[in-house]
Amino acid sequence: MKAASAGLQSASLADEIVGRINELAAISETPEHLTRIFLTKEHRAAAELILSWMQSAGMRAHLDAIGNVCGRYEGEVAGLPCLMLGSHYDSVRDAGKWDGPLGLITAISCVADLHKRGRRLPFAIEVIGFADEEGVRFASTLLGSRAVAGTFDESVLGVKDSAGISMRDALSEFGLDPDHIGAAARARRELLGYVELHIEQGPLLEALNLPVGVVTAISGATRLAASLTGMAGHAGTVPMLLRRDALAGSAECIVAIEEFCRTDQAGLVGTVGYIHAMPGATNVIPGQVSFTIDIRAPSDAHRKMAVTDIVRQIENIAKRRKLSLQLDVIHENRTVPCAPWLKSQVAEAVAGEGYRLFELPSGAGHDGMAMIDIADVAMLFVRCRGGISHHPDEHVDAADVDAGARVLLRLIENFRPRSVAK
Amino acid sequence: MKAASAGLQSASLADEIVGRINELAAISETPEHLTRIFLTKEHRAAAELILSWMQSAGMRAHLDAIGNVCGRYEGEVAGLPCLMLGSHYDSVRDAGKWDGPLGLITAISCVADLHKRGRRLPFAIEVIGFADEEGVRFASTLLGSRAVAGTFDESVLGVKDSAGISMRDALSEFGLDPDHIGAAARARRELLGYVELHIEQGPLLEALNLPVGVVTAISGATRLAASLTGMAGHAGTVPMLLRRDALAGSAECIVAIEEFCRTDQAGLVGTVGYIHAMPGATNVIPGQVSFTIDIRAPSDAHRKMAVTDIVRQIENIAKRRKLSLQLDVIHENRTVPCAPWLKSQVAEAVAGEGYRLFELPSGAGHDGMAMIDIADVAMLFVRCRGGISHHPDEHVDAADVDAGARVLLRLIENFRPRSVAK
Repeated sequence: MKAASAGLQSASLADEIVGRINELAAISETPEHLTRIFLTKEHRAAAELILSWMQSAGMRAHLDAIGNVCGRYEGEVAGLPCLMLGSHYDSVRDAGKWDGPLGLITAISCVADLHKRGRRLPFAIEVIGFADEEGVRFASTLLGSRAVAGTFDESVLGVKDSAGISMRDALSEFGLDPDHIGAAARARRELLGYVELHIEQGPLLEALNLPVGVVTAISGATRLAASLTGMAGHAGTVPMLLRRDALAGSAECIVAIEEFCRTDQAGLVGTVGYIHAMPGATNVIPGQVSFTIDIRAPSDAHRKMAVTDIVRQIENIAKRRKLSLQLDVIHENRTVPCAPWLKSQVAEAVAGEGYRLFELPSGAGHDGMAMIDIADVAMLFVRCRGGISHHPDEHVDAADVDAGARVLLRLIENFRPRSVAK
Repeated sequence: MKAASAGLQSASLADEIVGRINELAAISETPEHLTRIFLTKEHRAAAELILSWMQSAGMRAHLDAIGNVCGRYEGEVAGLPCLMLGSHYDSVRDAGKWDGPLGLITAISCVADLHKRGRRLPFAIEVIGFADEEGVRFASTLLGSRAVAGTFDESVLGVKDSAGISMRDALSEFGLDPDHIGAAARARRELLGYVELHIEQGPLLEALNLPVGVVTAISGATRLAASLTGMAGHAGTVPMLLRRDALAGSAECIVAIEEFCRTDQAGLVGTVGYIHAMPGATNVIPGQVSFTIDIRAPSDAHRKMAVTDIVRQIENIAKRRKLSLQLDVIHENRTVPCAPWLKSQVAEAVAGEGYRLFELPSGAGHDGMAMIDIADVAMLFVRCRGGISHHPDEHVDAADVDAGARVLLRLIENFRPRSVAK
């Protein structure tokens, strides 16, 4: 049974959201491949469009010091702490149009609905569109949310893009002052919580036939770079028992990593996405192979244990095969747990809209990973077709857009700050 | 016990051979990386040098219609059929200096030794230096020996090198007539046999502490191109049990190929030398992976059976993992068995020089693969350090150069044509 939200014109809300998704998707570096990169003219055009939507929704809106779009809808009195909603509006190259924009646009439409009804709440609502979450241009992710959380790393200003332009110069050219990024930072006392609606980017909700799911945590990740060195040799002249084949050894590692993660019962995933075999000729035994390993789990302790076990297995394989091994951690993110009090309000809103409750971790990174430093975080996932994301085929059905909007609006209207929620 | 060859000044012969190996190695596209490619000015300079050595050894010498260097040392009377000795004098890029030149230069020095002693045999000796065995420039190997065997494929004349120059134009520019390559072809009746001395390019002789070995056959080879297609996906969001990971599947195939060949008792070798995973990003499950498979065995029947078994295993792995499979044979060479009567004369010469007899297949391809069409073939392998070849570290000890020269000279002096040998 599906209960109606008080006052929500859901069909028209979904229409508006899908229309705006398409309108925003038209702002792209090239018309054929949706690409919207930090501090470009597409960034500028998208920001102006989103700011206009915020203003129509009854919000005061401005661009902050890093290029985030920020809208504020006051509560019953001006100056109250806010429930912050948002997502990002940059994209990867040749992207889908839903990853990021759906959460941002849905939040604006929810506020617009409140505004239309003249509804004021006992807290402010802020909607934020982060300018860079994907990190395409400067190879450093979460730039927008880190600035808001006050954890922006100033050394990144010196990083240059592929055209040799530093982030510092790109900011200046965009009209922002690289020395005042600190002005984007918000204080913990201003925020009652941060809630992000986002497409799942995975296949679970579809497999379970559910339009929405409640996120338990943003999984922590460890990335390793592995390199195995054996002895290159002629494919015809070196007998099998005298070989030190770096690719056969790497293949054994890849199979072992997969097997270890497949038999795990606690949401562990492990991926070898990149591999390079040298010299890479049909008739030469590979002497050296590099590959990456990406390990994620909803629990830090579990992930660390898994990494330790996987490293030990790789060391054993290398030793047995007389391959020398170089194995380095190149990236590590801790797990960001969703705050139980806030997550339970998201769950109530899901149930309130008549949907079966399903909790899942987020294997992908999100702005909540930065926002956790100044606010409790929760996330609502919306089903996407085939689990496909970062690809033009990324798709969300209008009915699921509607479901997401209903749940988010119900959450907002029923939101109790933590002090009350306790 | 090591018997002395009658008349052989072996120490000075080895000195001469090593000196000439170094002299020839100085003729290279770049001074740092030995590279001597078909129909280049290095080809020209090397040919002129080798022709001069042939002439000093008492041979009539000329460049043939494809650019091979050909020397003839008459027997007791002029115009007798010949025992043909030879190897190639082109190289791969950044090559070693022994692969090819050792066999050619040793043969010239053996003839020079006969000439110095005024020794004429009841047959002629021809020494041939093939202009292109490696096939670097036009991606087609054995061009020199195929022309001699009369099996040169004229369609290759249209093939262009990486600079867009066709083989036809390159031949003309070199001063050769592309329409008269047929003139390089020799008749079966002119040849009593073809014997090639070559470095092993593998580690077996070194492992057995032997300077030389007798080749049983040039192993046939089958090369396959495999492509597995699954579903790309986010490394964090797709649970292990919902994945169709093309790289994990390929890794399982690589391990299976290695295991199959390792447990074989009949000289089978299998190599995956090239692999490419797409899209190839750390945080993306590979959706498509291509790799090559190179399978060799000294018996064609055994190799074909092995290929059938390996293909079946790969098909099963693909099916179980719901990966689509494209598997094509891209290259196939039949096994070239060394002629028993000629091989036994090589073995006699090895034993006659006091070395323990050891027979091994050649996993690498050689000009004998083409020469088999007009002559019985035998090969003598000389130990090379670490089995390393196609690499600047390729090395043969002077003592092993000496051993090879002694055995080859003994073979020549004791050679009986097949009609006599029977």
